[in-house]
Amino acid sequence: MVSLRTMKAEIITIGDEILIGQIVDTNSAWMAQQLNDIGVKVERIVTISDALEEITTVLSEAEKRADVVLITGGLGPTKDDVTKKALAQYFNCGFKFHTDIEAHIARLFARFGKEMSKLNSLQAELPSACEPLQNNQGTAPGMWFTQNNTIFVSMPGVPYEMKGLMNDHVLPRIKSTYALPTILHRTILTMGMGESWLSERIASWEDALPNHIKLAYLPSPGRVRLRLSAFGTDAAVLSHSLATEVAKITQLIPELIYGYDDDTIEAVVGQLLKAKCQTVSTAESCTGGMIAHKLTSISGSSDFYIGSIVSYANQVKISSLEVPESDIQTHGAVSEAVVTRMAEAVKAKMQTDFAIATSGIAGPTGGTEEKPVGTVWIAIAGPNGTIAKKYLFGQNRERNIEISANTALNMLRKQLILN
Amino acid sequence: MVSLRTMKAEIITIGDEILIGQIVDTNSAWMAQQLNDIGVKVERIVTISDALEEITTVLSEAEKRADVVLITGGLGPTKDDVTKKALAQYFNCGFKFHTDIEAHIARLFARFGKEMSKLNSLQAELPSACEPLQNNQGTAPGMWFTQNNTIFVSMPGVPYEMKGLMNDHVLPRIKSTYALPTILHRTILTMGMGESWLSERIASWEDALPNHIKLAYLPSPGRVRLRLSAFGTDAAVLSHSLATEVAKITQLIPELIYGYDDDTIEAVVGQLLKAKCQTVSTAESCTGGMIAHKLTSISGSSDFYIGSIVSYANQVKISSLEVPESDIQTHGAVSEAVVTRMAEAVKAKMQTDFAIATSGIAGPTGGTEEKPVGTVWIAIAGPNGTIAKKYLFGQNRERNIEISANTALNMLRKQLILN
Repeated sequence: MVSLRTMKAEIITIGDEILIGQIVDTNSAWMAQQLNDIGVKVERIVTISDALEEITTVLSEAEKRADVVLITGGLGPTKDDVTKKALAQYFNCGFKFHTDIEAHIARLFARFGKEMSKLNSLQAELPSACEPLQNNQGTAPGMWFTQNNTIFVSMPGVPYEMKGLMNDHVLPRIKSTYALPTILHRTILTMGMGESWLSERIASWEDALPNHIKLAYLPSPGRVRLRLSAFGTDAAVLSHSLATEVAKITQLIPELIYGYDDDTIEAVVGQLLKAKCQTVSTAESCTGGMIAHKLTSISGSSDFYIGSIVSYANQVKISSLEVPESDIQTHGAVSEAVVTRMAEAVKAKMQTDFAIATSGIAGPTGGTEEKPVGTVWIAIAGPNGTIAKKYLFGQNRERNIEISANTALNMLRKQLILN
Repeated sequence: MVSLRTMKAEIITIGDEILIGQIVDTNSAWMAQQLNDIGVKVERIVTISDALEEITTVLSEAEKRADVVLITGGLGPTKDDVTKKALAQYFNCGFKFHTDIEAHIARLFARFGKEMSKLNSLQAELPSACEPLQNNQGTAPGMWFTQNNTIFVSMPGVPYEMKGLMNDHVLPRIKSTYALPTILHRTILTMGMGESWLSERIASWEDALPNHIKLAYLPSPGRVRLRLSAFGTDAAVLSHSLATEVAKITQLIPELIYGYDDDTIEAVVGQLLKAKCQTVSTAESCTGGMIAHKLTSISGSSDFYIGSIVSYANQVKISSLEVPESDIQTHGAVSEAVVTRMAEAVKAKMQTDFAIATSGIAGPTGGTEEKPVGTVWIAIAGPNGTIAKKYLFGQNRERNIEISANTALNMLRKQLILN
């Protein structure tokens, strides 16, 4: 199918902290996404420890298979990092001190009114076989090596420093080095139906997909993402056939789709509100500020988001949201009456077009037979009245908060489309 | 140093969705942590695609090096998953249908009032060389294989299903199979000083660490974690020598340490409040509910957390937090006067012992020469008055929100210790 040879990449992540599980490797996913976007296929991601021999072994394994090897981690100024030593040994070279890099490091420190430490100055000493890449976000420079037609790039593990180096140097240089094939992805984001049932519902569409398009299911709490990947040479052709398939599935399950690709439910809701010049406020009990946090994580959210009353304690529901104490006594805080009142009160108080309210039992304690852990009431107040719905999620507190927030935002999205 | 042979593990994560960067692999970190806790050292984490040949190749590489190989992913009921086929080929066996597992899957569906789909019923068919492990959280069973003294376990990639299988079966069985050495970790959590400077500050302590204790620096936005790892055979001896070193560094940098190991700043603050039977409320502008979310992510937070007014719009600062409009006009919303008023108003309104308020410019827009992006005012109101402090964080919105929330919680922690 692909007439050009696909360029293959491997990612090597160096760090004991990952192997003992102290930090999650988020760099690899980001790098993989960037490489994919320019048509370089990541075939393997390997995490190894800060051990010299281990590093050189994995470098030589990767060199046999890959055209591009991206290495992160092990470049900090402290004593536990051995990546530079391993690279010098692998490329069989000595070290060179770069005064221009030292000057750059000194400037970075001066900008924050600090003096450069001795350890930081040593970061200007690099294996002589490399071409240094200036790190505009921090003190550890990137390093670019070429050996037997394979490109090796070493970058620090701090995510925003790595991202800066990738954008400033690595991606543009890879693009200009290779004639790259095209891989395009589109992702359809769904909420409200589990993987197996969704799969049966869309079976006829899936079976009829053309050969050059591949489908993958990506389930996560409360959501299933459907990823389509198209392989070929002509971006316009691929883009057109992806658009055709996306249109077909959108017609098949319109009520389940909340967005595409990197959309988040909060960004989709934000765009709808912005387009209509409408505003929203929130009154959160069990979600404890999570909906407010999601909405304000969007740059420019002050155009549509006004504020929240997080009424975690019942006294705040009564004093700040005017929920009658008798409603709480009669129906309980987790009830249609209370959540409806919360939504309407915050809408009036903050003078918004819409309001979201949540009240539920996130767990792990607080459940009863009648209202088990995972019971959540969500209300949306809008120009045409208030709707409230009861959900039963799971046992896990973190998941319950996350799913409740997403479900509430999706309820608002549906109201925004109707209104 | 270690007289017992250290058991070595490798983790293999299967999934195109990770290699194209659509999801971040959080499973590996969790599994690595659990293995480390029982004295099994993870030496490599490898991510490969849902491709049959690739899977069998990596299995055979891992078998040469490792005593335990944990495999996740590729066991979903949908069409893109090939792990089971690859396992049958690698272990040179056919398939066997397990009626007891089918019954278990049917029961799971019945519990949610749903019928079992055909695809789910097929999940009861497993390579005949495996011993099935019952998945109490979902439909895909785990599989346990042994070959040439290496244990292989295959588990689904859905995090809570994998965790259930690990806790219910895998970890107890590994513990009972091997005589394991001991690796103990303690982590010292610091805030307020960068990696290089911290390293110079604690150099004498670091240089005097005994040979069997290793130190690693784990920097993340606004924080540096110091991880000590002790290797040996006698847990009591290791635990004692770790405690000695932790006590020394705690004396050296007491003002920088906010907790240990898995402590989070919100959990530390929560414990301090609980111990003193005191309460807190929040008034959040630039952090937009993040502090409320962090505090309510703790189970039992209703004991100390009352609520928040997220005053994202200035009108809410005026109407719900009684900030005089003239203060906003004279000093701007991001000012000592406004943040102080916010903290004091929410404290009075929600009748709490303490209150946190934030007002800042998270970015990327909204900065001025006088108040650039990253300028954040934080106030803590308490029984002995209110303190307010101005910070200058960075350019990145997400990081600014995260660091502001953590810094605010740390300011409250210091007040709680003093008061």
